[in-house]
Amino acid sequence: MAGKVSPLAPAVMPEMPDIEGVRLIAAEAGIRYAGRKDVMLAVLDPGTTVAGVLTRSRCPSAPVDWCREHLPGGTARALVVNSGNANAFTGMRGRQAVEKTAALAAAAVGCSADEVFLASTGVIGEPLDPGPFEAVLADMAKKAAAGGFAEAAKSIMTTDTFPKYASITADLGGTEVTINGIAKGSGMIAPDMATMLGFLFTDAPIAAPVLQAMLRRAAEKSFNAVTVDGDTSTSDTVLLFATGKAADRGAPRIDTVDDERLKPFRRALARVMRQLAKLLARDGEGASKFVTVSVEGAENNRSAKRIAMAIANSPLVKTAIAGEDANWGRVVMAVGKAGEPADRDRLSIWFGEIRVALDGERDPLYDEEIATDYMKQREIDLRVDLGIGEGSARVWTCDLTHDYISINADYRS
Amino acid sequence: MAGKVSPLAPAVMPEMPDIEGVRLIAAEAGIRYAGRKDVMLAVLDPGTTVAGVLTRSRCPSAPVDWCREHLPGGTARALVVNSGNANAFTGMRGRQAVEKTAALAAAAVGCSADEVFLASTGVIGEPLDPGPFEAVLADMAKKAAAGGFAEAAKSIMTTDTFPKYASITADLGGTEVTINGIAKGSGMIAPDMATMLGFLFTDAPIAAPVLQAMLRRAAEKSFNAVTVDGDTSTSDTVLLFATGKAADRGAPRIDTVDDERLKPFRRALARVMRQLAKLLARDGEGASKFVTVSVEGAENNRSAKRIAMAIANSPLVKTAIAGEDANWGRVVMAVGKAGEPADRDRLSIWFGEIRVALDGERDPLYDEEIATDYMKQREIDLRVDLGIGEGSARVWTCDLTHDYISINADYRS
Repeated sequence: MAGKVSPLAPAVMPEMPDIEGVRLIAAEAGIRYAGRKDVMLAVLDPGTTVAGVLTRSRCPSAPVDWCREHLPGGTARALVVNSGNANAFTGMRGRQAVEKTAALAAAAVGCSADEVFLASTGVIGEPLDPGPFEAVLADMAKKAAAGGFAEAAKSIMTTDTFPKYASITADLGGTEVTINGIAKGSGMIAPDMATMLGFLFTDAPIAAPVLQAMLRRAAEKSFNAVTVDGDTSTSDTVLLFATGKAADRGAPRIDTVDDERLKPFRRALARVMRQLAKLLARDGEGASKFVTVSVEGAENNRSAKRIAMAIANSPLVKTAIAGEDANWGRVVMAVGKAGEPADRDRLSIWFGEIRVALDGERDPLYDEEIATDYMKQREIDLRVDLGIGEGSARVWTCDLTHDYISINADYRS
Repeated sequence: MAGKVSPLAPAVMPEMPDIEGVRLIAAEAGIRYAGRKDVMLAVLDPGTTVAGVLTRSRCPSAPVDWCREHLPGGTARALVVNSGNANAFTGMRGRQAVEKTAALAAAAVGCSADEVFLASTGVIGEPLDPGPFEAVLADMAKKAAAGGFAEAAKSIMTTDTFPKYASITADLGGTEVTINGIAKGSGMIAPDMATMLGFLFTDAPIAAPVLQAMLRRAAEKSFNAVTVDGDTSTSDTVLLFATGKAADRGAPRIDTVDDERLKPFRRALARVMRQLAKLLARDGEGASKFVTVSVEGAENNRSAKRIAMAIANSPLVKTAIAGEDANWGRVVMAVGKAGEPADRDRLSIWFGEIRVALDGERDPLYDEEIATDYMKQREIDLRVDLGIGEGSARVWTCDLTHDYISINADYRS
């Protein structure tokens, strides 16, 4: 998967602090790619709670089935993620591979298989041989160490052109806690847990049901607000692990969602997830522009998000942006097709600060040359005001370029 | 818009017979393109009935608003269609342009403006100046003559690479009647009356409500079963005009939908509309493969169609086909994202006659080489059996290629 790095990649990536209670390692298991690390293991200290948001696909992968089954347990001791093979649509053998891998990891880490969480990304429909895991997991468990987030992020890449990770701190009842996240994209990225994996780790002592409620809510405005191509993967998985180690430093244990002390943590979680989500759009397959779509004045927030997604998923809008064309007519088309309440004659549209359409007509002051200049930027802000209500939403996407076609017409071969 | 013709264009186009009561002409009005005919006029004899199916876009064009308003009248004397400008999102001026054009056509033809039907296709958001219509319509009305269907089909093209028309005859109560149709695509093609125009003409004497019922039903399995890019236009319009002239040759007047004598006509209408719809997919922007997606074994027909559309609209499925890759994993992904009832472990998939997946796993007999050979064909049949019910549907699409990007990143400039 070597190739040029997305022009939208951040110039500088953050230093990742350790998370107490999390030890990481990545290794070459030779699952599909040669000469690169393709499996990661996170070893989590006893007492770690877990929450997850999984794909809504009706044809989920075997690891997604596994996570869905074990999330209600609420505790985690290990996370195994591989790239190169999604273990999706692999029937009984897929299920067996998952059980075998969980058992191997449990033996290596010294926990119950129920406490092992799994994710796989890569080709669909090829049986996944658990053999490579057998060869490496015991050794990995021994060598896992604090740190290693950047390396782990690298090992789960498929068509990604750069590893994605972010870190943030938050106050929890007077004690500073940390949240680290890693993620991968970058095709099949769409609403409803598109093709992406995201793993978050914190030392905050938070009960699983509380984690779950926060994670689901934060996902709506982060990972579920990113789209590359409107396609939804069989394997989307976001897991949040809380080791609770910050309790040793005085952080309070949080057992209810409405605990006031959670506020800064909740904000920090939302923020770090948004950062990761935006990195996905920045590494959208073939992306040359990073696009923020804001919709306001909609009937309600849900309607605003649907319209924003209709715009962000429109191949015609996305190719126009690739062509540096401020083609707001296609934005109107996308608003119209969303099927949500809209009044054509109240619609206004901006590219950046340039108002191109006002009250259902081209802005009388519209200057194509200025708009075209704006479209040459790497980062495009597209704003739509429906003028009928108070609902708003923001989503992130990228343009649709020749490189998307090249990447996806050749991926398997 | 000159360029290479789609490799999927039919080798031979049919001869188009005259339709009694229909006179046609196309002319150069200079609306946007120079040196090509960009407006067509159909003059319809008194007594012509009309039916229509229009875009469901919440931001429809001014001509769509006009047609929606006047279809209940049920009678038509003229049809004016232009390419180059969609007269969509043009506010009050769009409305005025439509009224002016209808008045000009009514004066030229000698009828009421209410009996003039209008459609426009091309750029969105540019005011449409009715001046060019004023300059040509009176002269066109004088010169309109029997025949001219191929020429009319040509004048309504935008990014189309070949004109689209088809003809069929049917028995109506012992008398042969004819249905001629013309259509244009070829981007913004999606369900719910995608960006396309289709106009059908028949000499059959059929009351407007009967026409309307038949047209809506036939559209579901023809124009509404084609997708190029999932984008829905502001301007989609299909109109069916029945001059009734065959009554002079003994055809019975049909006033009720359940008239047994309608059966052959209904079948013929469905067939000619399907032919036109398939031509749209054959001229999908940048198309190099014509793809038929059949879904069976779904919970019901509606569910089957949604799944078929999810497959046909998936950028990942479409790019895989462009890359001649029998990537059925992406078909599984698309089935999963449709949100319709499906059981992963009962799913089977075929490319042509090659079964690639069976009961939720790769077919044990699957031979990648044979599948890859098949994918080199120009016409790809993709079949999915969900194995859970009796519902079925068939839709048509094309692949997603570099040329789609080139066409749409450069269209306006």
